[in-house]
Amino acid sequence: MLKRLLVGKPLKSAENDGQKLNRFAALALLSSDALSSIAYGTEQIVVVLVALSSAAIWYSLPIAAFVIILLVSLTLSYRQIIHAYPHGGGAYVVSSENLGKNAGLIAGGSLLVDYMLTVAVSVSAGAEAIISAIPALSAHQVAISVFIVLLIMMMNLRGLRESASFLMVPVYTFISVITLLIIYGLFQILTGHAPFHATAAIGTAVPGVTVALILRAFSSGSSSLTGVEAISNAVPFFKRPRAKNASSTLAMMATILGFFFVGITFINYWYGIVPEAEVTVLSQIGKAVFGSGFMFYLLQFSTALILAVAANTGFSAFPVLAYNLSKDKFMPHMYQDRGDRLGYSNGIITLALGSIVLLFIFQGSTERLIPLYSIGVFTPFALSQTGMVIKWKREGEKWFRKSIANISGAFISYAIIAILFVYRLADIWPYFIIMPILLFIFYKINDHYKNVAEQLRLAPEVELHDYAGNTVIVLVGNVTQVNIGALNYARSIGDYVVAMHVSLDEDLKKEQEIEREFKQHFPDVRFSVVHSSYRSIETPIVRYVERVSNRASQQNYTTTVLIPQFVPNKRWQNILHNQTSLRLRLRLATRKNIILAIYSYNLEK
Amino acid sequence: MLKRLLVGKPLKSAENDGQKLNRFAALALLSSDALSSIAYGTEQIVVVLVALSSAAIWYSLPIAAFVIILLVSLTLSYRQIIHAYPHGGGAYVVSSENLGKNAGLIAGGSLLVDYMLTVAVSVSAGAEAIISAIPALSAHQVAISVFIVLLIMMMNLRGLRESASFLMVPVYTFISVITLLIIYGLFQILTGHAPFHATAAIGTAVPGVTVALILRAFSSGSSSLTGVEAISNAVPFFKRPRAKNASSTLAMMATILGFFFVGITFINYWYGIVPEAEVTVLSQIGKAVFGSGFMFYLLQFSTALILAVAANTGFSAFPVLAYNLSKDKFMPHMYQDRGDRLGYSNGIITLALGSIVLLFIFQGSTERLIPLYSIGVFTPFALSQTGMVIKWKREGEKWFRKSIANISGAFISYAIIAILFVYRLADIWPYFIIMPILLFIFYKINDHYKNVAEQLRLAPEVELHDYAGNTVIVLVGNVTQVNIGALNYARSIGDYVVAMHVSLDEDLKKEQEIEREFKQHFPDVRFSVVHSSYRSIETPIVRYVERVSNRASQQNYTTTVLIPQFVPNKRWQNILHNQTSLRLRLRLATRKNIILAIYSYNLEK
Repeated sequence: MLKRLLVGKPLKSAENDGQKLNRFAALALLSSDALSSIAYGTEQIVVVLVALSSAAIWYSLPIAAFVIILLVSLTLSYRQIIHAYPHGGGAYVVSSENLGKNAGLIAGGSLLVDYMLTVAVSVSAGAEAIISAIPALSAHQVAISVFIVLLIMMMNLRGLRESASFLMVPVYTFISVITLLIIYGLFQILTGHAPFHATAAIGTAVPGVTVALILRAFSSGSSSLTGVEAISNAVPFFKRPRAKNASSTLAMMATILGFFFVGITFINYWYGIVPEAEVTVLSQIGKAVFGSGFMFYLLQFSTALILAVAANTGFSAFPVLAYNLSKDKFMPHMYQDRGDRLGYSNGIITLALGSIVLLFIFQGSTERLIPLYSIGVFTPFALSQTGMVIKWKREGEKWFRKSIANISGAFISYAIIAILFVYRLADIWPYFIIMPILLFIFYKINDHYKNVAEQLRLAPEVELHDYAGNTVIVLVGNVTQVNIGALNYARSIGDYVVAMHVSLDEDLKKEQEIEREFKQHFPDVRFSVVHSSYRSIETPIVRYVERVSNRASQQNYTTTVLIPQFVPNKRWQNILHNQTSLRLRLRLATRKNIILAIYSYNLEK
Repeated sequence: MLKRLLVGKPLKSAENDGQKLNRFAALALLSSDALSSIAYGTEQIVVVLVALSSAAIWYSLPIAAFVIILLVSLTLSYRQIIHAYPHGGGAYVVSSENLGKNAGLIAGGSLLVDYMLTVAVSVSAGAEAIISAIPALSAHQVAISVFIVLLIMMMNLRGLRESASFLMVPVYTFISVITLLIIYGLFQILTGHAPFHATAAIGTAVPGVTVALILRAFSSGSSSLTGVEAISNAVPFFKRPRAKNASSTLAMMATILGFFFVGITFINYWYGIVPEAEVTVLSQIGKAVFGSGFMFYLLQFSTALILAVAANTGFSAFPVLAYNLSKDKFMPHMYQDRGDRLGYSNGIITLALGSIVLLFIFQGSTERLIPLYSIGVFTPFALSQTGMVIKWKREGEKWFRKSIANISGAFISYAIIAILFVYRLADIWPYFIIMPILLFIFYKINDHYKNVAEQLRLAPEVELHDYAGNTVIVLVGNVTQVNIGALNYARSIGDYVVAMHVSLDEDLKKEQEIEREFKQHFPDVRFSVVHSSYRSIETPIVRYVERVSNRASQQNYTTTVLIPQFVPNKRWQNILHNQTSLRLRLRLATRKNIILAIYSYNLEK
């Protein structure tokens, strides 16, 4: 009941296509991660530059140009991936197919962790925004973040389309507000209402500027590009023609993202805004352009909201990736089960739990997570683009023309990884611990499944075995109505039936009375008492059953243990019954050559 | 493995007597609740008096005398209960037997809740003491409290005697330190080293003192007596002769408690100590007597420790009470199971969880819990003593002489309840909500068990039923080695065997291939495909099975569903298998006329 209320009605597979996304909805669902990163992208560049001198801010413009080149190249590359891989899978599939298993698993593992980071980073940034509005909540930042994660998880368990329509409002509000911010800002600059306040004009020589500084600033700014890959992972969710719709959604998103990034960086330069500890660059820009009226608060509010919504991107992408890894036997099969509403429930739940753990570990500190987040994103970027180059090469015809976007994308991605490794090792070292562990787990799981498949393979000639008969052990407590049904069944399947009674009491009187009563009612059934010198009843039962089973198999008999259970007619009454039999079942369920059978006695009242 | 490490080896029942307590150990284990209450008993009296005027402090001496009268009367009464009820059970058993079921359940329910309060109050007071020592931890009070509860729970799951020896050190340290405090304090007073600083001498008329004020102070001070009943509930844990040992342990405890209470109240009067917000009365007395050297810190430390230990009393008493209520069918049967180390594991775990919930609700605020705690203790006190009077009356001979202690005890207990009701309703109202709910639950459970017993009763003439044959449905996935074993078993018990395959895929190719392969290997077994239009496979399977079962029972056949499961040879590998079959088993396990059988396929590697 509760589950139905929270998760909604189950859907038939045939309804699956109705759940597919059009471009408008897909943009809302899949672009919030990328778009929300402009809330910190420009700031990350400026922070690095200002560490040298506020005069260096003008360098953010050429750096932004480089980021745009990277964006264009990534977009072109991912368009090619979408068309080449219309069933989705993104970096994992592309890398595995073209660069081999290891590369694919590194890409896949990076993304799995990265989606958790996306959720953790975005949600805690969203929580910070809520707290800025209601300072009384400040002691509960982590609690609020966890609550938001659980809320988004629930929405995703309810199914995709509903989430999309639910999320359209904040995403399109954010897009409108930022567009207005940039256009109104530029309008004021052009009409001369916004005086030129840049800390130094473009081209001013700033002493101390090195290539290293520029590269660090660039690597920080490139965190704006996290999230670009989400669409290529989610192609199967699009309405047909899937590849075409996905690819034009990606182009729309990249255009918006590029416009926002350049616009904000330029206005920031014009107003000469320097980052402050408590106030973000975006909010300073907002105040400068809009003043501190309604529009400023709408900007702040919609920024907070889209950050929360960005967390949702991970919830679309993670389960698909987990499904792909699971199909290739690198993750448990359960990630292939579909939940009642066609969402990949297990993936959704895993992601929510993982990001909650991250929230607790990092206590919701956004800044410390971003470099880790970048290395986790650019590794699969680099791998998938290298993979595309290999693919074009292998396919031959016009390979170089097709590869240009991919080669430049791969080059920039490797460069960013190198920069991160050289200048940010203090922040990204956990990546180099987590990845080997993940790879180890992937291979461990893969070995296991392969091993199992090997063991299960049928010999070409199958010979069935005929048993001589069946031994059935029936567990009996007191002499009650339940015994009748269980014994009837046991007698029908068994050639040799034993009623097994476990005696716990130290005094023999009760035991003898039960035996006498049993023999009076069921004179033909053998009654056997198992004495328990431990208070726990499971051990002697298992020992007795194994003795019987050994004897049975010597005579070519099967062994069945029949355990009666009560089925109360109200759910809550289950707590009143079957506690012992549950534990016993767990113990017996793993024994070789013993079949565990459950006889249900349905209580009427 | 982990369980073994934390909980220790299982013990045989024969070892049970070796686990029994001598008086020295019993005092440590069962008296900490009562003794630790002197840490706040005197303070509770003085706080009420000082609200009028600090000159009123001298009234604490006559009030303490009244508390001592109550203590003596309770002790005498509980000695009689111990001898009359050597199997333990305390207020619940005494009230049920002499005053009827309702009175017994009120007493029992009150105590169940009270033990949770004991644990919550003591542990959070202990945590406060730890925090006073290490202020850096102050943000984590609730977390520390929860940690202590879990620690004590673990100790109790390990078994009783070890807990006792573990707890002797803090209890006897506390007893020694307080004894020294009182003797040294009195010595200084007698030798004239401690000048008389009382706020007003005994007998000074204080304007505004009313009977009501005195009664409120008395009711507050009587919270020192909580915990006195613990010994009478735990008689079965004592070495033989049980009643005698328990009764003299009680006498020892009462003597120590009375001496401490009077001593501390007197020294407090002599030094004219007035309660302060941050510093407890006991610690002020300690500073006055010992100065602020080593002995003062030892006093503070051992007070903190005994408060934590006091929580342990509940862990001895709660499971016994739950066991008694469960035996009388008012609580679930699982409270009668004994864990691996003869502790009543389920009771221990329930108590720990209950007190953790209270810690979260009250955020560890000791003061708000104490009045609730008092009403919860004095209700069963009053009932059990009324019960004893009835018992003596009924047994006739010399009943009045035997009843004197009980009558006075009952009278004082009722008086305290009346005072609490009149003056403390704002704090104790939850008691009047919780108790009816608990009684409702007790009766609901009782009705259910009675109903079940009724349904299970055998008719005088039992007739067994003979089935004509057996239908067995075997769940098959792919065609593998597992099918052979499962089909062998199914053929041995069944007259009609169906292999049921569930098809999830929309494309028919894979399904047809499996069917072809199956028929090639097992030409004699019927192969049946269940199509799933839902992604969830359980519903169509259950529907198919029910159809087969209906047809089977029309022909007087039984129906067995045989589900193969993998048993990996490493524990962690379970996560990789059987997820779907687990859910299916849950669904099928409650169906009438369907026997669920599990075939285990043990993986070798």
